[in-house]
Amino acid sequence: MDLKIAVLPGDGIGPEISEQGVAVMNAVCEKFGHHVSYQYALCGAEAIDKVGDPFPEETFKVCMDADAVLFSAVGDPKFDNDPTAKVRPEQGLLAMRKKLGLFANIRPVETFDCLIHKSPLKDELVRGADFICIRELTGGMYFGEKYQDDEKAYDTNAYTRPEIERILRVAYEYAMRRRKHLTVVDKANVLASSRLWRQVAKEMAPQYPEVETDYMFVDNAAMRMIQDPRFFDVMVTENTFGDILTDEGSCITGSMGLLPSASTGEHTPVFEPIHGSWPQAKGQNIANPLAQILSVAMLFEYFDLKEEGALIRKAVNASLDANVRTPEIQVEGGERYGTTEVGQWIVDYIKNA
Amino acid sequence: MDLKIAVLPGDGIGPEISEQGVAVMNAVCEKFGHHVSYQYALCGAEAIDKVGDPFPEETFKVCMDADAVLFSAVGDPKFDNDPTAKVRPEQGLLAMRKKLGLFANIRPVETFDCLIHKSPLKDELVRGADFICIRELTGGMYFGEKYQDDEKAYDTNAYTRPEIERILRVAYEYAMRRRKHLTVVDKANVLASSRLWRQVAKEMAPQYPEVETDYMFVDNAAMRMIQDPRFFDVMVTENTFGDILTDEGSCITGSMGLLPSASTGEHTPVFEPIHGSWPQAKGQNIANPLAQILSVAMLFEYFDLKEEGALIRKAVNASLDANVRTPEIQVEGGERYGTTEVGQWIVDYIKNA
Ligand SMILES: CC(C)[C@H](C(=O)O)[C@@H](O)C(=O)O
Ligand SMILES: CC(C)[C@H](C(=O)O)[C@@H](O)C(=O)O
Repeated sequence: MDLKIAVLPGDGIGPEISEQGVAVMNAVCEKFGHHVSYQYALCGAEAIDKVGDPFPEETFKVCMDADAVLFSAVGDPKFDNDPTAKVRPEQGLLAMRKKLGLFANIRPVETFDCLIHKSPLKDELVRGADFICIRELTGGMYFGEKYQDDEKAYDTNAYTRPEIERILRVAYEYAMRRRKHLTVVDKANVLASSRLWRQVAKEMAPQYPEVETDYMFVDNAAMRMIQDPRFFDVMVTENTFGDILTDEGSCITGSMGLLPSASTGEHTPVFEPIHGSWPQAKGQNIANPLAQILSVAMLFEYFDLKEEGALIRKAVNASLDANVRTPEIQVEGGERYGTTEVGQWIVDYIKNA
Repeated sequence: MDLKIAVLPGDGIGPEISEQGVAVMNAVCEKFGHHVSYQYALCGAEAIDKVGDPFPEETFKVCMDADAVLFSAVGDPKFDNDPTAKVRPEQGLLAMRKKLGLFANIRPVETFDCLIHKSPLKDELVRGADFICIRELTGGMYFGEKYQDDEKAYDTNAYTRPEIERILRVAYEYAMRRRKHLTVVDKANVLASSRLWRQVAKEMAPQYPEVETDYMFVDNAAMRMIQDPRFFDVMVTENTFGDILTDEGSCITGSMGLLPSASTGEHTPVFEPIHGSWPQAKGQNIANPLAQILSVAMLFEYFDLKEEGALIRKAVNASLDANVRTPEIQVEGGERYGTTEVGQWIVDYIKNA
């Protein structure tokens, strides 16, 4: 296969983990005889500094021209204490989502046995939890009509039937490939938009008779995820609820630094770690590259290159088992490996596999 | 003091726990020489069945005429599978909040040492956690303009400056009486309404120089609450975020059946357990009355009757220590006490104190 990848390293530790993602991608392509080419582009704080725009038109073109985007992280503390600053790295993210039509954000929540002890939840509750959060990413309050002056403000949480249908479709397809259990999360006892979500879901459910669909209020879902995370297989929800629930989901596993995500939709799909740009660690060779590397696995799997994805996952697990780990997950007394060493170990594993 | 209490037992286990709340109230009033009178009124599914309205005008009048409302729980499974039913018990709740102007929902999140093992979180993380969630309760998407047809729907998340100011004022006052740490939770990097919240908070903060105010995005707050619940002292947020975060907060302690809440505002304040109507347990004398009883403690404290509140808390702790507990929190091999037995034990403790 011929793969054209747009690489967006972004800010903070982004460039370092991006490098390891690319190295792993190269190793896999070499092994399986794929041809891969890369185009790098600016985004985030770096893009603001250089061209005044966190998602420049040039970057958009590079993305549109690619088969997939390998994204790392954006964000810089100099913007953190001023959420009303005119141009912010987050706007780049939102622009990317909207312009690439990335309406489906897919976040696997997986536990790694050797990291369970890092979970804030009790072992016996979280062990074996394995679900996918699917968040609608281009609708709702994020993009609805807004108004603000000194005395009042509002946001609009608007959804249309086609917007709801297409994301539910994605969710059902994931459920079909997994344990066939879909939980539709909403607040249909209060919100009109949620009632439309539920109505559309109830109309669509009979098309997937093998899937068990249940409906859960968002407050209840926020509790259930902590009390009984193994209940879930695939969960789907609107943008704002998804923002909260996906983050909650990612922190229950204790393996936040290892979780990748995919955002797919109308144009080029984007693969990225769920963690942020960790500016304090920039340039120190301590950032964990595994979430980025696993986002490369998701990339291959998106193109139905299952063996390629599986080999990356195998390599990552092997590195964990071999205690080749960055400091934050290293066992006591274990050797300390840097970002590049972990990446290199995985590359070697793939080459020798 | 003369106290006029409106009692709204509601549905499911509501009437049973209500009875124990009233018994404890009587015992305390007798001990401290207060005069108390009660007026009972309908709400929830029972009110729908009897008069076709989950918060009838008559009930509203009884509430307005009282000094405080002792509320239990509403909800019946016959409404559960039809969130679009024309009349639902939840609408009674929303009507009560709006008509009584209950803009501040106050939910203490407390751990009880003897119940820590019931928490889904690891002991060492949650032990000692003690914070208050303050949720704005009469604004935002719950009450904003709504629209729904078959093809599209929207809700409006609107806030005015005075609405934000008054709830922040409540939050600062709680913070002043506690550890002087306030966390304002919003999504100011995306929402216009959140930006107004943050702006108003930043203007108000200098009036409370002793309070350390911090600002946190809601996705981050949902994680922090699990990863480090002891971080929080007082947290304040808007209605929808508060719905999610207060429920998340209540389930991390392992003592959900014990947590009370207060809703205060323009007219009569309401005191109630945070748990629901548990219809399956109705009439079985197994429901835990402690959350209702502790809501009576909050009621006294609201009227600055601190000793009265403290005595109830002491009695509740004593009952736990004595293993006088309802089945769901009883230790293995411990004796089984019913709703009435636990209530009676606490009444006796108060009488003999
Ligand atoms: C940075 C922010 C705009 C963004 C969001 O809320 O979508 C982030 O929290 C995320 O979840 O990707
Ligand atoms: C029943 C529902 C309308 C209500 C809410 O969302 O406010 C409940 O979840 C609560 O938190 O009191």
